Amino acid sequence: MLENRLDGLIAATCTPLKTSGDVITDPIPPLVDALIDQGVRGLYVCGSTGEGISLSTEERQLVAEAYVKAAAGRVPVLVQVGHNSVSEARKLVRHAADIGADAVSATCPSYFKVSDPVTLADCMREIASAAEIPFYYYHIPSLTGSTIDMVEFLSIAAERIPTLVGLKYTDTKLHEFQACLEVADGRFDVVWGCDEMLLGALATGARAAIGSTYNIAAPLYRRVIAAAEQGDWKHARMLQSHSVAMVRVMCRYPFHGALKAIMQFQGHSLGGCRLPLCGLSADATERLRADLEAIGFFDWSAADSMV
Amino acid sequence: MLENRLDGLIAATCTPLKTSGDVITDPIPPLVDALIDQGVRGLYVCGSTGEGISLSTEERQLVAEAYVKAAAGRVPVLVQVGHNSVSEARKLVRHAADIGADAVSATCPSYFKVSDPVTLADCMREIASAAEIPFYYYHIPSLTGSTIDMVEFLSIAAERIPTLVGLKYTDTKLHEFQACLEVADGRFDVVWGCDEMLLGALATGARAAIGSTYNIAAPLYRRVIAAAEQGDWKHARMLQSHSVAMVRVMCRYPFHGALKAIMQFQGHSLGGCRLPLCGLSADATERLRADLEAIGFFDWSAADSMV
Amino acid sequence: MLENRLDGLIAATCTPLKTSGDVITDPIPPLVDALIDQGVRGLYVCGSTGEGISLSTEERQLVAEAYVKAAAGRVPVLVQVGHNSVSEARKLVRHAADIGADAVSATCPSYFKVSDPVTLADCMREIASAAEIPFYYYHIPSLTGSTIDMVEFLSIAAERIPTLVGLKYTDTKLHEFQACLEVADGRFDVVWGCDEMLLGALATGARAAIGSTYNIAAPLYRRVIAAAEQGDWKHARMLQSHSVAMVRVMCRYPFHGALKAIMQFQGHSLGGCRLPLCGLSADATERLRADLEAIGFFDWSAADSMV
Amino acid sequence: MLENRLDGLIAATCTPLKTSGDVITDPIPPLVDALIDQGVRGLYVCGSTGEGISLSTEERQLVAEAYVKAAAGRVPVLVQVGHNSVSEARKLVRHAADIGADAVSATCPSYFKVSDPVTLADCMREIASAAEIPFYYYHIPSLTGSTIDMVEFLSIAAERIPTLVGLKYTDTKLHEFQACLEVADGRFDVVWGCDEMLLGALATGARAAIGSTYNIAAPLYRRVIAAAEQGDWKHARMLQSHSVAMVRVMCRYPFHGALKAIMQFQGHSLGGCRLPLCGLSADATERLRADLEAIGFFDWSAADSMV
Repeated sequence: MLENRLDGLIAATCTPLKTSGDVITDPIPPLVDALIDQGVRGLYVCGSTGEGISLSTEERQLVAEAYVKAAAGRVPVLVQVGHNSVSEARKLVRHAADIGADAVSATCPSYFKVSDPVTLADCMREIASAAEIPFYYYHIPSLTGSTIDMVEFLSIAAERIPTLVGLKYTDTKLHEFQACLEVADGRFDVVWGCDEMLLGALATGARAAIGSTYNIAAPLYRRVIAAAEQGDWKHARMLQSHSVAMVRVMCRYPFHGALKAIMQFQGHSLGGCRLPLCGLSADATERLRADLEAIGFFDWSAADSMV
Repeated sequence: MLENRLDGLIAATCTPLKTSGDVITDPIPPLVDALIDQGVRGLYVCGSTGEGISLSTEERQLVAEAYVKAAAGRVPVLVQVGHNSVSEARKLVRHAADIGADAVSATCPSYFKVSDPVTLADCMREIASAAEIPFYYYHIPSLTGSTIDMVEFLSIAAERIPTLVGLKYTDTKLHEFQACLEVADGRFDVVWGCDEMLLGALATGARAAIGSTYNIAAPLYRRVIAAAEQGDWKHARMLQSHSVAMVRVMCRYPFHGALKAIMQFQGHSLGGCRLPLCGLSADATERLRADLEAIGFFDWSAADSMV
Repeated sequence: MLENRLDGLIAATCTPLKTSGDVITDPIPPLVDALIDQGVRGLYVCGSTGEGISLSTEERQLVAEAYVKAAAGRVPVLVQVGHNSVSEARKLVRHAADIGADAVSATCPSYFKVSDPVTLADCMREIASAAEIPFYYYHIPSLTGSTIDMVEFLSIAAERIPTLVGLKYTDTKLHEFQACLEVADGRFDVVWGCDEMLLGALATGARAAIGSTYNIAAPLYRRVIAAAEQGDWKHARMLQSHSVAMVRVMCRYPFHGALKAIMQFQGHSLGGCRLPLCGLSADATERLRADLEAIGFFDWSAADSMV
Repeated sequence: MLENRLDGLIAATCTPLKTSGDVITDPIPPLVDALIDQGVRGLYVCGSTGEGISLSTEERQLVAEAYVKAAAGRVPVLVQVGHNSVSEARKLVRHAADIGADAVSATCPSYFKVSDPVTLADCMREIASAAEIPFYYYHIPSLTGSTIDMVEFLSIAAERIPTLVGLKYTDTKLHEFQACLEVADGRFDVVWGCDEMLLGALATGARAAIGSTYNIAAPLYRRVIAAAEQGDWKHARMLQSHSVAMVRVMCRYPFHGALKAIMQFQGHSLGGCRLPLCGLSADATERLRADLEAIGFFDWSAADSMV
């Protein structure tokens, strides 16, 4: 169970799939070792990156178990349990607690939109109360369509959800993020969720960040953090600009497909994507490689990069 | 199994819940009898009205079974199986086929948005191919966030999904609806999904309509259809204007809660709603009753109404 | 000055431009004669079709004058005066009254969004009060971004704007349109604004329609109206489906450019479009012609068509 | 004429109005003196804050002249000329050049949306080419509805608009902002436009910022900048959190009305707002004052604040 706040880089992990589209777990242990080697300080499993929402309940449980087992207590594992059905989400919470996950996290439903903070708090209380395990609300309005103010939500939820410890904040409003950091005397662990804006978030007070590109470029982001901590913001900006360039390249492709293709370049065969997302064709994969070479990705993303 | 096109009014049924929020099926047989008595010609189960997406897979199966059993072949039953997870949707398709449902229908995922008609067709093929049972795509862009052109989708899907028989078209674009009616020489059963625009849809060629207010005012809508068939459009408009007034009143409240409150007024105890939707408070229920009385609802919604 | 309600087809006219992009008025008199010949019963000048918002105040006045003069009292002329600046809109109202226009009409501002019906009524009162001339609010939420409920607006505005006579309703919500027809005992002249849904609107009670494709296919739409009036809805649907096909073709191109290209095919040289809209290239114009031929446009749009 | 890049705080100035709603210029000279005294390094006139779009062309010219004259060369004055009509925008560009403004800036049209970067560049070239004066594109997608990628726009516009010197970037995507800073070897002056995210923008490379709250709290923001420059990010965050609190309070009211009310508290009588915006009632003004007192605004916004 999570005893302290998260800190540093938390990889929003991928879900390995066979060519047939079935989930497989064999690639997970070496992947987790590699991520920890590269300085990742936690794992966020079955989130948007992990296509949790596209998996069946059984598949989500399988993936969660494999990551918890592979992490073996070396880094905290958060299991994303968000679901259109609060009942199914509750099952996933109980399962996560049973397998020894460190925390759970949930988006709100995305089909019926949540339009006020009280209903959101009621919804999250219903989910979180399924087990005694730390809970992070996962705020990602671009996917859920629910644009509740997070300061209002935290203020209301603080009194209603005993296990609420924080947020995964995946939006670009640094001001809302900053205000969340201060709610209830700074009680909440508000974790930054936009990799390509990490530098600005660090300046604003971010202590931890959950994201997809920490799977493929953790060493780069660690240098961003180190430079910022040393007060060398000019260097930090140069490093962050690599992240911006990388994400801009990936967004020219189906993003999830591009991520898995890059992980393949780095030695991890994680397969394609589950519909409605799509993997990259062989052609697109080669174009992606060329695009990444053009921006120097294979140099500056490496652990021993000199930049 | 559905052998012909749908026609007339198809009620998008509610899911009965206990005060605790658990699903119950006891109220279903008398409700189905009442709906058939009022002229409903089919049931659409676990759709948006039925909060299918908010139920667990097991609960959805329970509700589907109860409706299929209660209908007992008197009217066709369509089971909505849309899910963020295509795997879970496939389970629901197989189950619907096993229990003898007449057709299945699915929304696309709502978390990851579908942004092109080919991916939508791929997604629906993956779902539909789980069993040999007629399939209706459920187009409801206001909830799924996917605004694919339905003419393009049908044109592509016509060749890829052998079991595709039609659409539930829940949008206000009558022109797109009309164009869908003509795709592939009129091969598809395109069913209208906006109750409050039924008259315009009839004029444009609608033969069947699926909707939530056919649970509470089927006699009114049957008179709309009859007036239109008899060429008395002036009278049809007057009747349709009652539907418009009713929906406007219901939209002042949480819509699903209002629907279940009205069914309670009509003798069917279906409980509240599953989060993130909310039932009406006792106070709100009384205000709703007064609002409905003010527009004459209890007169013109009845089977023996003289209007 | 408009003494009665509008009825039949009102063409939302184009603004003729030179190759240089300057406004010219020479093509207007023969165009107006042709429109009246084809059965158009009114002109809506400087609206969205006429790119009024993209013209300078002086240019708008020039165009309005030319249309009023060309109409010469044969059909009513409505001048669209909507502007981000209420002050400029007031100038346009006074000018329209001075030149003898029959009515004015205004969108709300589109930069700052109007989010409540009282502010919208205040805004429109400010504009309408600049002169004694009938006023139609122009509701087109897809362009203004203001999605105020029109029943609420009319109810409030009925008491605040003495010159308010109606709406140009350009949205697809037939139910809202129907409810508007009934506000204040049917006092308002609510004019339909979606050509490709005309048939459904007629069934719902529309008496007049303002639109861009009445410039190029008025005879077709007159046959739609005639068939509906004669109770031949099957034939009316077939005719309306031509409209749907035509609009679908035009929407594959920049719509305004396609409209002006078609008017050129019909003998009216109106030039290209004012930025940010774009005219069609010569290539695109030829593809458009072929696309229109493929759907039979040049047959069924003609005044002497046999369909 | 602007010879160097902007730096520091640029106030997006208000337009003083009489109770009648007419523009007045008397309050402008003392206001400009006060702003310069508080460390403001430039003026952005007739932008969103100044309700430029709601004024008539003549009024915009009057306001621009008054600010240019009052600035008297002490700080650069940028005149916002964006308009739905490119023709009117061109008039405003010529006027700004004639009166000796240092630069012009324009939003794109907001009624017809611009959906590709080439059309946006064509539109801005048409505006900018009206006079030889430095041009800043004003990117504010929340108001214009045009969400063009600014890196693509700058890349295209760099070759087409000789007078283009930069952007006013009013969105929250720090990553896009950072990428803009690097286009064409850093040739463009990309100015930050979200006051409440200033700290994150400084970390990311912002050198100048244009905003509405620099009218009322420039000393606070100067301390943010100073703390960041001295590497005291903890202190800078504390100061920035005051800005966040202030903006959150203001957003509970109509924002523009709140801004003008605060300026009244600070001794500048600028009147209310032009429709469709609204000023604050006397009651709301008193509540605003109490809300601001509760967060300490009157202490930490002052020039001699000790925080």
